[in-house]
Amino acid sequence: MKAPFRTIAGSITAPRGFRAGAVFCDIKRLGTGSGSNKAKKGDLALIVSDVPASVAGMFTTNQVAAAPVTLSAERVARGIAQAIVVNSGNANACTGARGLADAKTMTRVTARALDLQDADVLVGSTGRIGSLLPMDNVKRGILAAAGQLGSDAASATRVAEAIMTSDTRRKEIAVEFSLDGKPVRIGGICKGAGMIHPLMRNAAGLHATMLSFITTDAVIAPAALQRALEIAVGQSFNCITVDGDMSTNDTVIALANGIAGNRALTAGRARLRRASAEPAEGSSGLSPDQLFQAALNHVTLELAKMIVLDGEGVSRFVTVQIHGARSAADAEEAARAIANSVLVKTSWCGGDPNWGRVLCAVGYSRARIDQTKVDIGYRTTAKGPVLYGLKNGQPTRTPLEKLIEVVAAKAFEIHVYLHAGEHDATMYASDLTEDYVSFNKGDMSDPAALGG
Amino acid sequence: MKAPFRTIAGSITAPRGFRAGAVFCDIKRLGTGSGSNKAKKGDLALIVSDVPASVAGMFTTNQVAAAPVTLSAERVARGIAQAIVVNSGNANACTGARGLADAKTMTRVTARALDLQDADVLVGSTGRIGSLLPMDNVKRGILAAAGQLGSDAASATRVAEAIMTSDTRRKEIAVEFSLDGKPVRIGGICKGAGMIHPLMRNAAGLHATMLSFITTDAVIAPAALQRALEIAVGQSFNCITVDGDMSTNDTVIALANGIAGNRALTAGRARLRRASAEPAEGSSGLSPDQLFQAALNHVTLELAKMIVLDGEGVSRFVTVQIHGARSAADAEEAARAIANSVLVKTSWCGGDPNWGRVLCAVGYSRARIDQTKVDIGYRTTAKGPVLYGLKNGQPTRTPLEKLIEVVAAKAFEIHVYLHAGEHDATMYASDLTEDYVSFNKGDMSDPAALGG
Repeated sequence: MKAPFRTIAGSITAPRGFRAGAVFCDIKRLGTGSGSNKAKKGDLALIVSDVPASVAGMFTTNQVAAAPVTLSAERVARGIAQAIVVNSGNANACTGARGLADAKTMTRVTARALDLQDADVLVGSTGRIGSLLPMDNVKRGILAAAGQLGSDAASATRVAEAIMTSDTRRKEIAVEFSLDGKPVRIGGICKGAGMIHPLMRNAAGLHATMLSFITTDAVIAPAALQRALEIAVGQSFNCITVDGDMSTNDTVIALANGIAGNRALTAGRARLRRASAEPAEGSSGLSPDQLFQAALNHVTLELAKMIVLDGEGVSRFVTVQIHGARSAADAEEAARAIANSVLVKTSWCGGDPNWGRVLCAVGYSRARIDQTKVDIGYRTTAKGPVLYGLKNGQPTRTPLEKLIEVVAAKAFEIHVYLHAGEHDATMYASDLTEDYVSFNKGDMSDPAALGG
Repeated sequence: MKAPFRTIAGSITAPRGFRAGAVFCDIKRLGTGSGSNKAKKGDLALIVSDVPASVAGMFTTNQVAAAPVTLSAERVARGIAQAIVVNSGNANACTGARGLADAKTMTRVTARALDLQDADVLVGSTGRIGSLLPMDNVKRGILAAAGQLGSDAASATRVAEAIMTSDTRRKEIAVEFSLDGKPVRIGGICKGAGMIHPLMRNAAGLHATMLSFITTDAVIAPAALQRALEIAVGQSFNCITVDGDMSTNDTVIALANGIAGNRALTAGRARLRRASAEPAEGSSGLSPDQLFQAALNHVTLELAKMIVLDGEGVSRFVTVQIHGARSAADAEEAARAIANSVLVKTSWCGGDPNWGRVLCAVGYSRARIDQTKVDIGYRTTAKGPVLYGLKNGQPTRTPLEKLIEVVAAKAFEIHVYLHAGEHDATMYASDLTEDYVSFNKGDMSDPAALGG
C-alpha cells in the first residue's frame, strides 16, 4: 500500500519560494513591562511568495464579517497575490470604516516593506472583537517581520505560533508528491479553538475565527485553485465544530506560486472529497488533478482535525457519520444537529454513549427521518466493529458496558443509519466540558481581557 | 392599576370540578428497600374532570415522538376528554409497538378505574428514553392514585411533584377572573429543567420533555380552546430555551370543563400575545375572549418562566428581545440564535455582557441584517434604562463596568435593534454553567441511571 503523497517536515515554507516571519509587537497592549509567557510568542506574521502567486480564498458566511475578511475577499477575486499579513490579539471586527481603513493600511505598509502593490497583499486578523488595532504597534511589527523573513521550517513555526489565540498547540503540516516527474509540495498552518463552526463560501458568497493559510509550489491557475480549495474546505474546515458558533473572521487562503514547474493543473471537477482524503492504494490510478486534490484534501482535513483536538476544554474527538439520508442536505443537517447538540456533547464529556440524545437530535433536525428505521452504532476506530445501541429505532441487547467501553476512548465514531436514501455526511466534533464553560465565561476581575 | 385577573392559591384543582391524585409506584424500579428521598415523591399521577371537558393539546415537533405523544395527539383531535394519566421516571420513547401498547394500556386501566371510555383518557410520560415501562407497577399506581383523588390544593401539589424529574421545585399557578359576572379559573402545572427548547404544534402537525397540564372551568368549545392554547403556547413555552435540545415528549394539554357557566367563549382571533401577557390597566377594555386569552397567556408564560428559572445548573435568567426585524421569522431566528449560542450562554454564566458574541450569533442566524445598523443594549428590569454596548455596529463609550453591573444580576434583558423592519420577538433563556455540564455528563459509575 503506497500513499500517493507523503508527509514531510515543516509547513508553509516547505513549498519552494515561500518565506515567513513573525514578531511580537504587543497588539493586546499588555505593556512592555509584561513578563508573561504571552509576550514570548509573536502576534504579527507575514507569509510571502517570491513571485506572484495564484490565490484562492474561503471566508465566513457570518453577516457580521470583520474588516480583514471584507478586504481579503475582494482581493482574492483578482486571482493573484503575493503576501499575507496576519495578526492575533485583535479581530478588527465591529470596527466600522476605521477598521477597514486599518486593514488597508496593514496591506499598504506590508506592500511597501516588500516592494509589492497593495492589492497583492491579503490580510487576516483574529482575537478580540470591537477594539481598534493599535496601528503604531502593528506598523512597527510589519517592518520588523519583513526584516526577518526566512524560508526555513523555524520561520514557518513562528508564524504558526503567532496566529494562535486560545490554542494550546501550533498546527502545521506539509506533504510532497510528484507531478510530471517533478516534486510538488503543499504546506499549511491554521489556528482556532473556540467559536468554531465554520461555514465558508468563496468570495462571491457573503463572507468565512479559524484561520488557515496554505502554500504550494504547484502550477495551477486561480480559478482551478479556487475550485480545488472549495472542495477541500467542504470536506474539512466546513465539517468541524467545537461549539456551534460561527465566527466573524473565519478565513482560508491558499497561494500557489508555480515554482514546481509541473504542467498546469486544471483541477476541473476532480471531486474526490472524503473518499480520497485518506491516501489511496497506489498512486498510478490518479490523474495529476486528482492527486493534487487528494493532497490538498489531506492537508486541510488534518489541519481541521487539529483544531477540534485542540478545542477549548475538549476531552474527546468524535466523528459523526450519517449514512443513507434522503438528500445531501438532510445528511448534513442530521450530522450538524448531533455535532452541535449541547446534551449530546455533554454526554460525550462524561463518556456516556446516550444514543437516546443522539436520536433526539436527529429527530429535531431538518432531516426527514422515520424513527422506526434508524440504527445507531459506535466504533473505536475505522477498523473496528460497529456496536449498535439502537436498531430500527429501538434499543438493542448490546450490553451498555460494551458501548461505554467504546465511548471511554479519547476518540471514537458514531454511525447513524437513516435508511432513507443514498446520502452520507461526516462531522468532526468535540465534547462540551466544564473546562470549556470555565474558559469562556470570562474573568470579571479582568474586564480588559473581555470581548471577542 | 387593576389587573383583569388575579392570582389565587393552588393550581389544577383551583377550577371547579377537577380532582387530582399522585402516588409512588416505583417506575424507575429503585426497589422497595430504597430509602432515598426520590421514593418520597410520587411518580404516577391522575388529573380528572368531573364531567367531559373540551380538550386542546400541543405536542413536540421532534420526529422521534414518544408513544404517549402519538396517542394523546390522536385523541386530542376528538375535542373531548376527561382524564390525564402521567408518569415520570420513564419517557416511553423509542419503545416501538410495545411502547404504544403500554401507553394504551395506561389509558385503559385509568378509564376502568374512573368509569370512563379509553378515548376520554390522555397520557403523558417523562424520564428515561428506550426502556419499557414496568407495567405491573404502573397499573398498581393508577389504581392507587384513582383511590385518592382530591379537589384540594394539596392533591394538585402532589401531582405537580410527581411529574418532576431533574426539577428542583414544583411549578404551579392559578388565576381567577370574572366572565358574565361569573368567576372563572385557570390552573396549571408544568415540569422541565433540561432538554428544553420546545417547538410545539397542534396535533395536525408532526408531534410536541416539558409537560404542562392546564385546567379551567370556563365554557369554551374544543376548537376555540385549541386556538387559544396555540396562541398561549406561542408566546410562552415555545419561547423558552435551556439547552436548545427539543425533546421527544414535550406536551401541553388543556381541559375546560365548563362548570363556571359563562357564555361560551369563541376565542376567535383574540391575538393578544405578549402585549397582554402582563395584566393590563383596568379590565373594562377587554372582551370575554380577550380576557380569557390574557389569563391563559399569563398562566402559560409564568409556568414557562418557572422552567427556565429551574433549568439544570441555571444561574441567570435572560430575556432576549429582538426589535425591528424584516419579518417575524427573521426576528425569531435572531432571538433563537442568541438564546441557543453556547458562547453567548457561557458568557452570561460569567456575568460577561459580551455584545460581540451576541452580534456574532445574530450574524450567523438566518435573519437578514446589516451589521452597520445594529444596536445592542442591556437592561436590568422592564422599568430601567437600556444601556447600549453597541450602536450602529460599533462599540459605544458606555463604560464596560456599567454593562457588567447589569449582567451581574440574576435576571436581565438584552435588546437587539436590527432597524430592518417592524417585527419583534422574545426568547426567555438561561445561561450555560459548569453545573449544567456536570449534571448532564452522566455518572458512568451508575450505568443504570443513564439514558433519556
